[in-house]
Parts: sequence; C-alpha cells; structure tokens
Amino acid sequence: MTALVLIDTQIGLQEGAFYGSERNNPEAEENCGRLLQIFRKKQLPVFHVKHNSTEIDSPLYPNKMGNEFHPAVQPLINEPVFEKTVNSAFIGTNLEVSLKAQNITDLVIAGLTIEHCISTSVRMASNLGFNVILVSDATAAFDKVGYDGNKYPAEVIFHAELANLKDEFATIMDTETLMDELDKSIE
Amino acid sequence: MTALVLIDTQIGLQEGAFYGSERNNPEAEENCGRLLQIFRKKQLPVFHVKHNSTEIDSPLYPNKMGNEFHPAVQPLINEPVFEKTVNSAFIGTNLEVSLKAQNITDLVIAGLTIEHCISTSVRMASNLGFNVILVSDATAAFDKVGYDGNKYPAEVIFHAELANLKDEFATIMDTETLMDELDKSIE
Repeated sequence: MTALVLIDTQIGLQEGAFYGSERNNPEAEENCGRLLQIFRKKQLPVFHVKHNSTEIDSPLYPNKMGNEFHPAVQPLINEPVFEKTVNSAFIGTNLEVSLKAQNITDLVIAGLTIEHCISTSVRMASNLGFNVILVSDATAAFDKVGYDGNKYPAEVIFHAELANLKDEFATIMDTETLMDELDKSIE
Repeated sequence: MTALVLIDTQIGLQEGAFYGSERNNPEAEENCGRLLQIFRKKQLPVFHVKHNSTEIDSPLYPNKMGNEFHPAVQPLINEPVFEKTVNSAFIGTNLEVSLKAQNITDLVIAGLTIEHCISTSVRMASNLGFNVILVSDATAAFDKVGYDGNKYPAEVIFHAELANLKDEFATIMDTETLMDELDKSIE
C-alpha cells in the first residue's frame, strides 16, 4: 500500500527572508496540491505533517499566519495531521506507528524544504524500512552561506541534496511522471 | 557530558570506485584518530559505529577487508562498538539508550560519509535532543551524478551538505579548534 506524506506545506515557507535570500521551485506547493488531488481521487491514504516551530521569530511559530497550510494543500477532515517541532516527521509523532498499522510500505514524500525537513524525513523513512519516492518538483531549497563563507544558490543546494538522496534513500520522480504511474498502476 | 561518536571509519570508505570517482578530505580518518586520542587522554566516553552493508558488492560487506576499522581508529577493548545496517547510527542500535543512560547530552560526531551516514546520524542526533558538534575535516564526501545528469564534485557535495547541517542541526568545527577547546575546558 502506498501513501502520500506531505511535509511542512505551510505558507511561511514562501517567506524567503527568514530562510535565505532565494528559493527555487516556486511551483512546489501547487505540485503538492496536484499529488493530493490524485491520491484523493484514487482513494489512497494521505498524511499531512505540520511544523510548529519553537522559535518565536520563525514564520512557522504556532498561531502565526505562516503556520497555516498553503491553500493548495488544505487537509480534509478525514485526513490525519501530525504536528512536529523538529525536522523529522518521525520524531515526536505517531507517524511510523500509524503507517505500519495500515500496512503502508511505500511512501510518496513531498513538501519543504528539501535540505532540512524533507531530507531528514526521507532518510529516516528509508532507514525505517519504507520504500520512498521523493517528488522532485514538489519540493524546494533555499540558498545558504557555507562553512567556507561561500554562497550556495538554492539550485545548487537543491541538486546536491537530491543527488545525496537519490538511490541511497529514495527514487526521484517528477509530479507528472508519478501521476502517470498512478493512473496506469491502480484501477 | 560530552562523548565522541565515530561513524563508519572503515577501510572500505577509501575505495573511491564503489562510491564515486573522487573523495575529498583524504586526511579525515587521521583526524578521527586525533579526536580519539584526545578523548581517551581526557577520559571522555567514546562510541564506535560500524557499518555492515547488506549489499554483497559493497566494500563494507561483513568479513571483507573493507569492513575493518581504519588503523587510525582501532577501538580499545573497553570502547563500545555499535553495528548497523542502515545509514543512521540510531536505527537498529542501542546507541540512543546507551548515550542517555550515561547522561550524555553533547556529541562530537565524525566519520564517513558526510552526505550519507554522517548527515543522517547528525540530523537524528539533533532531532533526538543532543547538542551536536560535527568536525569538518574529520569527514568527507564522494562526488555524485545529479538527478539533472550534471556531475557534482566531492567538494561541492561536501560544502552543500555542511551548509545544510550548519546551525540547523550542528555546530561545525575543525579538529584543531575542537582539540584546543577540549584542552581549555576540561582539566
């Protein structure tokens, strides 16, 4: 059984100024929304993960506007929402137990940001024994200043992390390809 | 209490051909050895983590020469060794329980490779509540071919991953600075 896990698809992660100076893949949330629609249409399980930052300055601090889900990925009443305060969707939540209780073996993971919460959650999901598909155009990175003082653009951070996760932790696929596969494989 | 956690400091991780075409920081294992010496001298706890690959072609497959610890970081009889089969040092091992049983709150992490087992273990350590120092010149990366088909050199993979871990998951420090800090802070 395959489930969709959407991680930190919250408004605040469009606020570049807090996380860096630029973000790639501005269409990531819309693609998360397209994934959500096809999983609902196919009646496959959907899990939402929401980040409640413990830093008062963060756009994801509870009760701030930025903490709200992006309009493209509003959970339905019957879709479980797991709240977390760290990067991994599996630490401090019942996500692993809930997935295993439903005999879910395969996860389609999307959301933000690839270099922080997505990478941490994909790595743990894989090491916990799930088969993971990470959707390349339904995630995004922010730029960083390195330990060496050099600036690493969002596109470099994005592609380096995708390369690190590829094969070792996840199969990488874009939204269109995944939607085609789902349409073909499941009646 | 601070402990040293050395991860996958095994001979096989010098075999570039299996993991990529080039590795940066050839001195990483020697720097792990220097960290090990100062932790022993200061009588601070040391934990070794060893990877037993489940892939028969891997240099880290059990009973192969590559599975052995590097000569610079041979464990002493009284130093615990945790064996793992996935990237995270905390999955399928008793490492977390052992650290917490000894009231260890701070971890100095070093070993290989930064983009796979070190990153995964640093991320989990931080999310599990440990304060983490990652030693920049006591770890190393291999080059990768990206999802976009471009080649990402070991130095780019290394610095991008270090940038992703910095501040969010760990304090980054080099071996010399860490050894000076340990010499100053602990009698």
